[in-house]
Amino acid sequence: MEKTNFDVTNERNLTMLVDFYELTMGNGYYNVGVGDKIAYFDMFFRRVPDGGGYCIMSGVQQLIEYLSSLKFTEKDIEYLRSKDTFSEEFLDYLYNFKFSCDVWAIPEGNPVFPNEPLVSVRGPVIQAQFIETMILLTINHQTLIATKANRICRAAEGRPVMEFGSRRAQGYDGAIYGARAAVIGGCSSTACTIAEEMFNIPAVGTMAHSWVQLYPTEYEAFKAWAKIYPDNCVFLIDTYNVLKSGIPNSIKVFDEVLKPMGIRPVGVRIDSGDITYLSKECRKMLDDAGYPDVKIVVSNSLDEHIITDVLSQGAAVDSFGVGERLITARSEPVFGGVYKLVAVEESGHIIPKIKISENEEKITNPGFKKIYRIFDKKSKKAVADLITLNGETIDENKPLELFDPIYTWKKKKLTNYYAKELMVQIFKEGKPVYESPDVMSIREFALNETERLWPEVLRFENPHTYYVDLSYNLWNMKQELLHKYSEKYKE
Amino acid sequence: MEKTNFDVTNERNLTMLVDFYELTMGNGYYNVGVGDKIAYFDMFFRRVPDGGGYCIMSGVQQLIEYLSSLKFTEKDIEYLRSKDTFSEEFLDYLYNFKFSCDVWAIPEGNPVFPNEPLVSVRGPVIQAQFIETMILLTINHQTLIATKANRICRAAEGRPVMEFGSRRAQGYDGAIYGARAAVIGGCSSTACTIAEEMFNIPAVGTMAHSWVQLYPTEYEAFKAWAKIYPDNCVFLIDTYNVLKSGIPNSIKVFDEVLKPMGIRPVGVRIDSGDITYLSKECRKMLDDAGYPDVKIVVSNSLDEHIITDVLSQGAAVDSFGVGERLITARSEPVFGGVYKLVAVEESGHIIPKIKISENEEKITNPGFKKIYRIFDKKSKKAVADLITLNGETIDENKPLELFDPIYTWKKKKLTNYYAKELMVQIFKEGKPVYESPDVMSIREFALNETERLWPEVLRFENPHTYYVDLSYNLWNMKQELLHKYSEKYKE
Repeated sequence: MEKTNFDVTNERNLTMLVDFYELTMGNGYYNVGVGDKIAYFDMFFRRVPDGGGYCIMSGVQQLIEYLSSLKFTEKDIEYLRSKDTFSEEFLDYLYNFKFSCDVWAIPEGNPVFPNEPLVSVRGPVIQAQFIETMILLTINHQTLIATKANRICRAAEGRPVMEFGSRRAQGYDGAIYGARAAVIGGCSSTACTIAEEMFNIPAVGTMAHSWVQLYPTEYEAFKAWAKIYPDNCVFLIDTYNVLKSGIPNSIKVFDEVLKPMGIRPVGVRIDSGDITYLSKECRKMLDDAGYPDVKIVVSNSLDEHIITDVLSQGAAVDSFGVGERLITARSEPVFGGVYKLVAVEESGHIIPKIKISENEEKITNPGFKKIYRIFDKKSKKAVADLITLNGETIDENKPLELFDPIYTWKKKKLTNYYAKELMVQIFKEGKPVYESPDVMSIREFALNETERLWPEVLRFENPHTYYVDLSYNLWNMKQELLHKYSEKYKE
Repeated sequence: MEKTNFDVTNERNLTMLVDFYELTMGNGYYNVGVGDKIAYFDMFFRRVPDGGGYCIMSGVQQLIEYLSSLKFTEKDIEYLRSKDTFSEEFLDYLYNFKFSCDVWAIPEGNPVFPNEPLVSVRGPVIQAQFIETMILLTINHQTLIATKANRICRAAEGRPVMEFGSRRAQGYDGAIYGARAAVIGGCSSTACTIAEEMFNIPAVGTMAHSWVQLYPTEYEAFKAWAKIYPDNCVFLIDTYNVLKSGIPNSIKVFDEVLKPMGIRPVGVRIDSGDITYLSKECRKMLDDAGYPDVKIVVSNSLDEHIITDVLSQGAAVDSFGVGERLITARSEPVFGGVYKLVAVEESGHIIPKIKISENEEKITNPGFKKIYRIFDKKSKKAVADLITLNGETIDENKPLELFDPIYTWKKKKLTNYYAKELMVQIFKEGKPVYESPDVMSIREFALNETERLWPEVLRFENPHTYYVDLSYNLWNMKQELLHKYSEKYKE
């Protein structure tokens, strides 16, 4: 069998992972002569999945990798030519494509909120338009999973959560970058081996039921395992019967194999049944047998709600393995990030653009902007994000007045605060200018930044809505554009 | 910025995309000297997502590609050595890994049902165990999406459905292989450009809102577009106001640009608002203006339920663009395929193995098996699948008695039937022996095979449960194993 060039295991170039309309528009821009017009786009989202209070930004490193390696091969050009849609001049442009945009992003691990730009792009409209698909795909996916992982880890209340979902992921990258995002969201480790090789996040694993089944008895299976892995001995105890077989055989093997070696066993894992009941019974049996230090790991279609529930019932669980409900964000598997034109340059001036909708929350924030996160100096807590026009600065020595962008009479005056610019530039004139921290550092950063949110924002159900406000200048600009369009279509 | 070897855009080898426990078990098997013991594993699923009546098999081609290129690099071995978990002998074994399993699979596009093997593996237990993660990941993902696409396309009642979901997919492969699976499930085309290059499935696309926003007016934006793409002119008409602006401007440009050229416009697309109302109004306005042949395309968070609903209300829609709810199978984003040990060989004899569970439907079907699909000769409809031991044959000249594996008194005698073996061998002693059809042929096959199911099985809600029965020999073997274990744990 001959292998195709696009075998999943072969070299890949993701330049052509693009919605076809980016190319038809590119060809259009090129052929009407506006391809080099400078445009500004924002990527943002409108609501937090699962009704949560915030998301965890993730995926910037992969976005940098993609943008650093945009390249159309001869084969790509040949394929595009065969579509009979593009001019030869445009195909030449693609073949000689040289990325020249400026790109800003909120660094990974930051809590992020609806309607603020996560990524902003400034550059020739052909290019800034072209990268839409991959910006969305990359940030939408990883932010979705990091956010879900963060919920699940919070439910575990400090107990380690292991990411176990590769087999149920939506595709290979779903497993690989999903594992990365899960760790950014708070998971302590993953079962996905390649993810450790790629991102230096710990890969873990012990045995499946098949190990136990392969032996005539569970006792023999455990005994063989203990001899091979005395230093890291964890048994899967639910192949036949947890309490009548799994635990008694575990204790027997701990006593017979590990005790003479002077080695303490590490744990047991339960993968089915009533976790609360079984874990409590296991705990008692292990304690009575002299193994109070042996950990109980559970894994069976877990998510933040089940974990909260079993812990509230006193389940004796030391760590959780979480699979399909994390790696697919099963309860809400779509992160609805969008990418919208917000301005163009005409003769060196930035002209703001707005997307109108009958659905008010779908109206965009126009203009070239930046974001300040405002922290209270005393509590160190984040109190609001303020989106401003790009040129605006905040004088921390003066009180800062924030107002609700809809109910503008709702105002708040802040003193004793400091303002941190949230976005960093990741590309300058097409060149990468930002070095991502390693994944375990991003994880730590995310844990710390999450703790700087008020508990009301962290709630699973009906969290307090964190303030994302607009500066007076930005708000005024938006109102002007809205009134202009409303005037036009009022009848 | 230095690029890592695992940059998303660089060469990749997915051998290490494996749950870590496959490796700890492999090392265990190797070191206790049972690595070459011949084991049999089945991959199967237990329930159809969304309460549907069947799934559409997908992913076999990628499984073949993966299994054809298993290879541990020196870097992989070095990384594994650094884990301080594996013996040098086992690492040597991996470095010299030579795949030698036999693998059978149900070809892509076939309707498949719970509890029948989709993939069966026979080979040295180290190998047969190792490939678990990627078999599940590959088949679970693509079968999930093909199944969802099949539901959505059925709802569209013959209208073309375009796959538009790349930006909301769960990772790059979620977009790429998701587009492939969506077409296998029935989609006519995709927006994902690279998917056409890879799989020769049609990629389509026109304009985004940003094209319209870039121009001072919608009219100018449409006019520029029509001049560039006169032969394939489709306007996105909801940037400002569909009925007051989008349609009037479309008609004006059709009249002014295309009519003088003697070219018929192709269509308009609505991406927001009340589809039913807007499409009907658009239809009237287009008809009145002399454009009854211009198609109306809609796209806005669609799925099988919304499509059924708008069509039942008489929406004037000619084709659908379906995004996030298809590419993530949003209503049920997990396909729960599992991979279980079903037999081992001892001195040349096949010893069946069973996985017991207190949850009856989690009990596995033991033994080395095959599947016959039984068709009624007269109607050509599929009436049942019969799982038998591998050595069993069916004599089509004799009546076939089927019985329910739980309520065994429920019996059915078939005459005038024929039996088709469902699985094909895809690897023989580690060598690929099956050539996949191209994707568009698989799509056609899937459409035809779906039509061979009774309408009762095709229903969206509460479909009839298609019979998946066991042969007497297989049923007896299972009962014996169950009684043996039940005896052991009865107190």
